Amino acid sequence: MGEVHINGDANHHESKSNGSAIKNGVVAGITNSTRSCLWFEEEIEEDLRWVFSVSKILHTGVSEYQDIALLESGPFGKVLILDGKLQSADADEFVYHEALVHPALLYHSNPKRVFIMGGGEGSTAREALKHRSVKKVVMCDIDKEVVDFCKAYLTSNREAFRSSRLELLINDARAELEEREDKFDVIIGDLADPVEGGPCYQLYTQSFYENILKPRLAIGGILVTQAGPAGILTHKEVYSSIYNTLRQVFKYVIPYAAHVPSYSDSWGWVMASDEPMPKFSIEETDVRMKQRMISELRFLDGETLSATLALNKVVRRSLAKETHVYTEETARFVHGHGTAQKLLCQ
Amino acid sequence: MGEVHINGDANHHESKSNGSAIKNGVVAGITNSTRSCLWFEEEIEEDLRWVFSVSKILHTGVSEYQDIALLESGPFGKVLILDGKLQSADADEFVYHEALVHPALLYHSNPKRVFIMGGGEGSTAREALKHRSVKKVVMCDIDKEVVDFCKAYLTSNREAFRSSRLELLINDARAELEEREDKFDVIIGDLADPVEGGPCYQLYTQSFYENILKPRLAIGGILVTQAGPAGILTHKEVYSSIYNTLRQVFKYVIPYAAHVPSYSDSWGWVMASDEPMPKFSIEETDVRMKQRMISELRFLDGETLSATLALNKVVRRSLAKETHVYTEETARFVHGHGTAQKLLCQ
Amino acid sequence: MGEVHINGDANHHESKSNGSAIKNGVVAGITNSTRSCLWFEEEIEEDLRWVFSVSKILHTGVSEYQDIALLESGPFGKVLILDGKLQSADADEFVYHEALVHPALLYHSNPKRVFIMGGGEGSTAREALKHRSVKKVVMCDIDKEVVDFCKAYLTSNREAFRSSRLELLINDARAELEEREDKFDVIIGDLADPVEGGPCYQLYTQSFYENILKPRLAIGGILVTQAGPAGILTHKEVYSSIYNTLRQVFKYVIPYAAHVPSYSDSWGWVMASDEPMPKFSIEETDVRMKQRMISELRFLDGETLSATLALNKVVRRSLAKETHVYTEETARFVHGHGTAQKLLCQ
Amino acid sequence: MGEVHINGDANHHESKSNGSAIKNGVVAGITNSTRSCLWFEEEIEEDLRWVFSVSKILHTGVSEYQDIALLESGPFGKVLILDGKLQSADADEFVYHEALVHPALLYHSNPKRVFIMGGGEGSTAREALKHRSVKKVVMCDIDKEVVDFCKAYLTSNREAFRSSRLELLINDARAELEEREDKFDVIIGDLADPVEGGPCYQLYTQSFYENILKPRLAIGGILVTQAGPAGILTHKEVYSSIYNTLRQVFKYVIPYAAHVPSYSDSWGWVMASDEPMPKFSIEETDVRMKQRMISELRFLDGETLSATLALNKVVRRSLAKETHVYTEETARFVHGHGTAQKLLCQ
Repeated sequence: MGEVHINGDANHHESKSNGSAIKNGVVAGITNSTRSCLWFEEEIEEDLRWVFSVSKILHTGVSEYQDIALLESGPFGKVLILDGKLQSADADEFVYHEALVHPALLYHSNPKRVFIMGGGEGSTAREALKHRSVKKVVMCDIDKEVVDFCKAYLTSNREAFRSSRLELLINDARAELEEREDKFDVIIGDLADPVEGGPCYQLYTQSFYENILKPRLAIGGILVTQAGPAGILTHKEVYSSIYNTLRQVFKYVIPYAAHVPSYSDSWGWVMASDEPMPKFSIEETDVRMKQRMISELRFLDGETLSATLALNKVVRRSLAKETHVYTEETARFVHGHGTAQKLLCQ
Repeated sequence: MGEVHINGDANHHESKSNGSAIKNGVVAGITNSTRSCLWFEEEIEEDLRWVFSVSKILHTGVSEYQDIALLESGPFGKVLILDGKLQSADADEFVYHEALVHPALLYHSNPKRVFIMGGGEGSTAREALKHRSVKKVVMCDIDKEVVDFCKAYLTSNREAFRSSRLELLINDARAELEEREDKFDVIIGDLADPVEGGPCYQLYTQSFYENILKPRLAIGGILVTQAGPAGILTHKEVYSSIYNTLRQVFKYVIPYAAHVPSYSDSWGWVMASDEPMPKFSIEETDVRMKQRMISELRFLDGETLSATLALNKVVRRSLAKETHVYTEETARFVHGHGTAQKLLCQ
Repeated sequence: MGEVHINGDANHHESKSNGSAIKNGVVAGITNSTRSCLWFEEEIEEDLRWVFSVSKILHTGVSEYQDIALLESGPFGKVLILDGKLQSADADEFVYHEALVHPALLYHSNPKRVFIMGGGEGSTAREALKHRSVKKVVMCDIDKEVVDFCKAYLTSNREAFRSSRLELLINDARAELEEREDKFDVIIGDLADPVEGGPCYQLYTQSFYENILKPRLAIGGILVTQAGPAGILTHKEVYSSIYNTLRQVFKYVIPYAAHVPSYSDSWGWVMASDEPMPKFSIEETDVRMKQRMISELRFLDGETLSATLALNKVVRRSLAKETHVYTEETARFVHGHGTAQKLLCQ
Repeated sequence: MGEVHINGDANHHESKSNGSAIKNGVVAGITNSTRSCLWFEEEIEEDLRWVFSVSKILHTGVSEYQDIALLESGPFGKVLILDGKLQSADADEFVYHEALVHPALLYHSNPKRVFIMGGGEGSTAREALKHRSVKKVVMCDIDKEVVDFCKAYLTSNREAFRSSRLELLINDARAELEEREDKFDVIIGDLADPVEGGPCYQLYTQSFYENILKPRLAIGGILVTQAGPAGILTHKEVYSSIYNTLRQVFKYVIPYAAHVPSYSDSWGWVMASDEPMPKFSIEETDVRMKQRMISELRFLDGETLSATLALNKVVRRSLAKETHVYTEETARFVHGHGTAQKLLCQ
């Protein structure tokens, strides 16, 4: 175990007194330094950077597909980094994962079987397992090392990883869905954004949704996928296209969004189904959550859901006007997911 | 006029061919450089930085209170910088200003007289003047130089500055309100966040609201104030306290929020009144906007308003539980507004 | 004239009191901000950055070849930036230019005619003109706009630009030397480092030195060229190759180096001649400088010269062992001078 | 053992193939990422930063006095960081340590006993032990944890730490020298720069040199101390004062300097003695080094020594004119060694 610690964290004075300079695993605290010296820098766009201090590198690993690191950050607590990009932060991963998982499950009349494309971190499964009706969560991630890493180090997902209702597969989600013959009530896309030059956009294309995913949805089944940045200035990168692509394939498509601080942006998700999804009032949502779920959520409730579903005028207009459809030939990409990154989509 | 231009802007190739190396005012463009060399860095928190490229310094000035600069930024277009902090960006200032101004004016039955505390940039006045019912907008900013600077250089506010319905005062808003005897239908606080060691928190205190501001509200009058960062991780800095302070003074208090990309956060506002504010449906809001306003908005409409009013559970809980009240003795502050900044609140 | 000013410079309080916020040309000062918000960032290597604060953009321009800017920096005073790279800083340009010019002129028995390849900034000519014996300095720079820019704005070179002994040509130095039939006592290479993909390395090749430059040297003539970074860790980038290439062409070759703070590195130069260059004692050098020069230097004197000529063991060994020769086919390049930069060598 | 690894290091592909994502101690390499995401930032001055990529945090520790870290950096290999400041880099620590140790030992007629104030890293002792004449090196560092850390992790000093000629003391060097009654041929000051508000400047004061250190020098004994930045722009911070202070105490004082790339500056040292120090020719120095030392050096030889001893005119003039003397009352300080740092001088 390699927990190490670098100047800049003033929160651990208590451990300072215990003396020895050489520590493996647990590192003693920082003293009275007021300036951090180690910084994580994410290039959001070529002309925009998101920079935060790092006080410890808790664990690192490497897989066939990507580098993995768990850092202790100044502003966001523990952060999971894959190939130099922040994936998930202790301080607000619950926003992303609750928003990804629960609306679809709540809209479904009786979700029993859930399939997660990607989701190796385990948080998506953790959220799905909060629904009493769910009998089985199949989580299919291509990267065994990321899964093992998260299993070992993300304590908040430990219980989920041990659940008897979780079936964990290491496979390409596309191949897995293609091979399977069973059907799911909810399929959740917890995949990386479309990567230029990589196969990942194949899990966002019209033909994938039409020919591979949709046949695996049971009657009344709902697909929900993360859909990239959804801010006023960024929603046209991939969000509007994913939305419009799903509109080609499903009769009912619902986009929604919420601000995720550690991503320094609003984030988007899209639900899609061939059956109409119900419109609950705030109170109905709250009641349904209470009835169906084993524990209270931190971010989502009826009012929050209504806020995430109400997109602002700028984004709504772009979505309405979008004509781009993801096909094998016409992918669109977000910045930074380019040649530098491995051909990896989950 | 001092428009200058630095490596990093690839958008102005057309001007390159015109030759002369020495340009005053208008500077030709950049060629094939791929990396910016000039960066604006804002320290959001001690351990968090928001960094974007700058390609031109368009204009600068200095006042008794603060430094003023208009920069051409990479990601956000023209940005107005006061004392090293981003105040307003071409790319998304409409989000902040529409959200600040219109909900209160729409909720008021017939807003004729509007008072703006601060707002020297002119955008708040511009928005208020979009309401047909408004006969007079009194804008009271302490910093003449900022006002003159924005008058001269912010072309999108030029018309507003010239409006015969605008009365522009250079004065301390607190002093101004104390001296006046007329009343207003809507008072808008477009002030800087509370500044440690400065007098500015005096425009957020219970006694100011109670004794100085409230007497200047006409019957049915509404106060709305910007209220600082409102993200999951930042809303306790000042937002929840401003909300709770207003709850001590007004019978009806409505907090709301929206993500402003160039601020790298969600932002908060609070409306307050002693009369109940109406609850419009999305459609009613849209109709009312159409009836009352001379032009369409870019960000706000019925659905957007419903989204901004629906706070997420995390923020809602904090607001409900907040007990701190701003008084002269117990101010709370946001990061970076400290000793480095002048004693300035508008 | 576009002198503008950004937060971060605490040295100009005096200008603050003059009031108006809108200033063209001369911008009033900064107040009590303690943190800079605008930074120049030079990528020295992919993994190494040199970052300094900028308080003003004094002037900018653009040429057929490159962008030009004169900035007021925090640590180095006025800095001249070409295409995003620091070329010259008020605080220490005298180190570079005195070291480039004077050793060769002092070693020559009676330097009358000097040819400068590049040198558009004017500082190299300024130094050469300090020698009483010099009757003519021909300065040949390809970029008229850079020359005009520096003529206009670099006040310390104003006198040099006006000298009747200076002949200023706008031309490619290679073409110029090829066409000319007169000879020079000293030829000075004040060119950019070899640029990948650009023609500039052509002014560092064996065949250029052999066939074009050497024929233009009078008997006893000396070539001196800047030769890139010469630090313990960087001298193999181009310095050792330039040295070795000159060794193929000239009988006597003398490398030397000095630390230039604003370059964040030691810098290298190489002298070459077919006649032996004298070895002066420290005292002899001081005497000769006094006899020959119209004014005292700031950096160079006998002892300084002895220090710059004495290379450390690491660099000396590399130079001795270097086998690479610059030819049209085998150029070597320094970082950052790549595809992003224009095909420009002077 | 906590060796961890972060995106940005392309040099370790070989270790990637070994598979497992969870690694303790030795972490597999990075793949094809081209952009570093983790950066070490040192604030050289308030307006100047030195920033380099970090790919691994190899080990960390903490002591009563400071935080300790060994990082794998992009440009400088392994770097030792104390309290957020780079102390020593694999790529060029030999420059600093050879320059600190050998001139004084070579100038001494027969150095047998050496005392090192500070030097916990072990490199100074390592160099001193290269002299055959040296029978005993007493190294006295106040920080046991730093010493233990370096003992454990700096493999290049392992042999030195095990030498029977090394006597390692954990004590305040001032107290130690005060208590001792034996005398030394060479005393080496390998201490941190004077720290504002801390006791460290006490090891640079006239009274310390006069009353405590000098009595411990044997006849013909030489003191040498590191003396801070010595660049054109930085030598007045502390270098000139340390030099002038020693001039008050010793009859013969010799300042010298060399560029240390990872410090992004030239560095200064000062030798002092009451006996005249010999002036060797380059050849004599080389012969003496060969005769006296058990192994060849990487940086220093006769020519290098002559270069380090020859200061440039700017620095020489400042030193000659300096009138400041370090006393208990009049300390001068370098940037960044201020209130943020512990009261620690070795």
